[in-house]
Amino acid sequence: MDQRYGEFIRRVRELADLSHAQGLLSWDQETYMPPRGTGPRARSLGTLAGIYHEKLTDPALVALVEELRGRELRGDEEVNVRYVERDQRRALKIPRELVVELSQTQSLAHEVWVEARKKSDFPLFRPWLEKILNLQKEVAHRVGFEGSIYNAFLDEYEPYARVETVAPMLEQLRLRLVPLVERIGATGRRPAAGILDQEFPVDRQEAFGRQALVDLGFDLERGRLDVSVHPFCSGTSPEDVRLTTRYNPRQLTGALFGIIHEAGHGLYEQGLPAEAGGTPVGGSVSLGIHESQSRLWENLIGRSRPFWEHYLPLLREHFPEQLKGVGVEAFYAAINQVEPSLIRVEADEVTYNLHILLRFELEQALVEERVAVAELPQLWDEKMEAYLGIRPPDAARGVLQDTHWSIGSIGYFPTYSLGNLYAAQFFSQARKEMPGLMEQVARGDLLSLKVWLNEKIHARGRRLRAGELVREVTGEELKVEYFMQYLENKYGELYGLG
Amino acid sequence: MDQRYGEFIRRVRELADLSHAQGLLSWDQETYMPPRGTGPRARSLGTLAGIYHEKLTDPALVALVEELRGRELRGDEEVNVRYVERDQRRALKIPRELVVELSQTQSLAHEVWVEARKKSDFPLFRPWLEKILNLQKEVAHRVGFEGSIYNAFLDEYEPYARVETVAPMLEQLRLRLVPLVERIGATGRRPAAGILDQEFPVDRQEAFGRQALVDLGFDLERGRLDVSVHPFCSGTSPEDVRLTTRYNPRQLTGALFGIIHEAGHGLYEQGLPAEAGGTPVGGSVSLGIHESQSRLWENLIGRSRPFWEHYLPLLREHFPEQLKGVGVEAFYAAINQVEPSLIRVEADEVTYNLHILLRFELEQALVEERVAVAELPQLWDEKMEAYLGIRPPDAARGVLQDTHWSIGSIGYFPTYSLGNLYAAQFFSQARKEMPGLMEQVARGDLLSLKVWLNEKIHARGRRLRAGELVREVTGEELKVEYFMQYLENKYGELYGLG
Repeated sequence: MDQRYGEFIRRVRELADLSHAQGLLSWDQETYMPPRGTGPRARSLGTLAGIYHEKLTDPALVALVEELRGRELRGDEEVNVRYVERDQRRALKIPRELVVELSQTQSLAHEVWVEARKKSDFPLFRPWLEKILNLQKEVAHRVGFEGSIYNAFLDEYEPYARVETVAPMLEQLRLRLVPLVERIGATGRRPAAGILDQEFPVDRQEAFGRQALVDLGFDLERGRLDVSVHPFCSGTSPEDVRLTTRYNPRQLTGALFGIIHEAGHGLYEQGLPAEAGGTPVGGSVSLGIHESQSRLWENLIGRSRPFWEHYLPLLREHFPEQLKGVGVEAFYAAINQVEPSLIRVEADEVTYNLHILLRFELEQALVEERVAVAELPQLWDEKMEAYLGIRPPDAARGVLQDTHWSIGSIGYFPTYSLGNLYAAQFFSQARKEMPGLMEQVARGDLLSLKVWLNEKIHARGRRLRAGELVREVTGEELKVEYFMQYLENKYGELYGLG
Repeated sequence: MDQRYGEFIRRVRELADLSHAQGLLSWDQETYMPPRGTGPRARSLGTLAGIYHEKLTDPALVALVEELRGRELRGDEEVNVRYVERDQRRALKIPRELVVELSQTQSLAHEVWVEARKKSDFPLFRPWLEKILNLQKEVAHRVGFEGSIYNAFLDEYEPYARVETVAPMLEQLRLRLVPLVERIGATGRRPAAGILDQEFPVDRQEAFGRQALVDLGFDLERGRLDVSVHPFCSGTSPEDVRLTTRYNPRQLTGALFGIIHEAGHGLYEQGLPAEAGGTPVGGSVSLGIHESQSRLWENLIGRSRPFWEHYLPLLREHFPEQLKGVGVEAFYAAINQVEPSLIRVEADEVTYNLHILLRFELEQALVEERVAVAELPQLWDEKMEAYLGIRPPDAARGVLQDTHWSIGSIGYFPTYSLGNLYAAQFFSQARKEMPGLMEQVARGDLLSLKVWLNEKIHARGRRLRAGELVREVTGEELKVEYFMQYLENKYGELYGLG
């Protein structure tokens, strides 16, 4: 490592140290900050963001990156320089006034959205969404893109992904999911009834959740589990990864699968290459790959029959009254009940992606100016009816339900579905390479899968792009087949679709 | 406020925003950070400190300060510019290499100190203390001082204090405290026996402590109480003030008076002028004034008879078995037992300042090069014998007991005694202005005193220097008389010294 590259890395690590502080301040804001602390916290975060921008676009770092880009870089050096250049380009192309305006608009729009959702009043939110959309389109034009303008949005969350590839995959998903949901609905079965909605004392939910966390291999010497309104995983380094969840004393599965989901994110963060800490190589690949890790543990393991063959007896020790007489089959059916519903975050595995599709199609049409903001509520409801057979009774449970657009996160939604696709394809490969995997899971041994994911995905950091990683791990391009086969097999059996 | 002063304030607030982040990262390190998170946290804190130094000594800010110093400033403007200039001068005079060497040496010395204390091995720590001392003396010479070099050390913690004034006051204290301790010892009374050292379940200690916190007027919408190994108060703004304590299930008073003590600090932080937040005017005066607030609540209120007339019945509700048959007089005597002991942090009100005196005299002699580090253990033991009549059986319970010197905090100790003196003088004034104060306390009404302190001390921020504040509030210079009279009256009565 020569002196110039060394200086580049020193500066990049300084940026990471700033991100560490930003990450912790944000985590604290969601967990322990006293209610009145909002104002000073916002100012401190604003200042840190300003300093980050200043350091990222420091002419000395710009010159270093330019110089290093001119060389024949290989391996980690190429990756580090490329990703910093990406961030730098974006930061340089967006003038500070636009950053400030966007940040202020999003902050105000978020407040209006909270109010609008409460009142179920879309017209209240509409001018704000229009403003955000215009500002974000300006950003997209300044940053630049090839093909659809939507690529500029998508690329921010799923680097190197292209709507030309993603859209047809999601379209295929839709064509197979809609009839599957209909066939399941036609059976009229509702196996969850009565089992999951009882009184489940929070302290025992937490005790079981913590046990599961440890069994999954999440290292509490290098992480924590706390409570927040919106569950998340926040990693400032592989040595300090923080998960949150929320408990509902009258509902078992929210916190339980929430913890397993966040643990999937957390295992990824803890498994990242520590020796590359503070550089792009030491980071995660994309939001979609991140989501693949949480979905894999939550759904492919956590909602599997073998998992509950081991865990149901343990869960029953915590809830002997509530789970009296509930066998593995009944429990497995209950936690996998499929039912079209209005709210994305409460959706089951089968209907979930239809919620995403709807948002993806709408936001793509919005930024490509094929539809107007004013048309959203009607289009939303029509698509809900077409895909899931139900119509939201109001905007709060329809177009206003998600916070993403209010905070300017356009292009984020598809990463949820990509996560499901990646997860199924990775998992299929894991089972090929470890034929006894599900028998191990049934014995409560979850560590071989963790070690496999550590080696195949986590320890690689950001060395491969998402597409490259999928090819490297599974020998194939990403396809919907693995996910759809998984769903069709599992739910075909569960609902006797024959 | 003109444009140049406005730009000055903008830059100063940016520094405060950085301090906010540093403060939160440090708080988290002592409370919730996972054990393995140390490395990345240290790097992030190091980077933030570097950026702080960079911004403080930015030539543009240096020029601004110089320009503003040349004007006829008044009021808050004068205070803000003067304190920033103070910090800036210090930062400019200490070369970066010295800062780095000091920080690394202190970090390593602290580790060696932990080891040395464990083994009670002073020679192990000796070369490190010598190195720290030499580096700190170099800092003092670079920063500059008048009179004794010790002034450079003292000034960092108690701005504008001078050893020429402080030393004679502490000497007077010694001359009156040593005989007082002897007379108390001669009575042979040990009223605490059996009352305070029982099983006191931690959850009930916490419940009572939280109630006291609220009664004192500490606002939990703008603050928190958590657990840490070493109790502290950390305020990033008046809107977010965090206290910590530690609970010992076999000892009642540690956590109880610890909470009241930290609440005193916390009330000060919450009472600072929020409109001046992020500027020197919005900060606290000095460590001594800060300590006066904690000592006032802990000792002058918390260890008073009227306080327990109200609170003992409430405490007994939490510990009915443990406090059965214990009346106010017995409890009051128990929590005020005077007994020479080896460990400063466990000392009672009367002997406490003798522990401080010993350290103050030794560190003053060290930096003035009147004694050598190698002589410390012997001198320590001799002074313990002379002042308290006891000799440490080993270095761990003697010269190695405090962490301060290992982290380079030389000149800090006297602020503890100054805090006691300020507290007694402020409190005497409060009682003059509110003749019914102790009757109010006996009814559990603590808010008039809080409001008085808010108005007289807290809301002034850093507008007055410590000496000016004492004159403004009490009409006199600081003197030992108030503190000694308080002790002699209270303990004369308690121990029947007549």
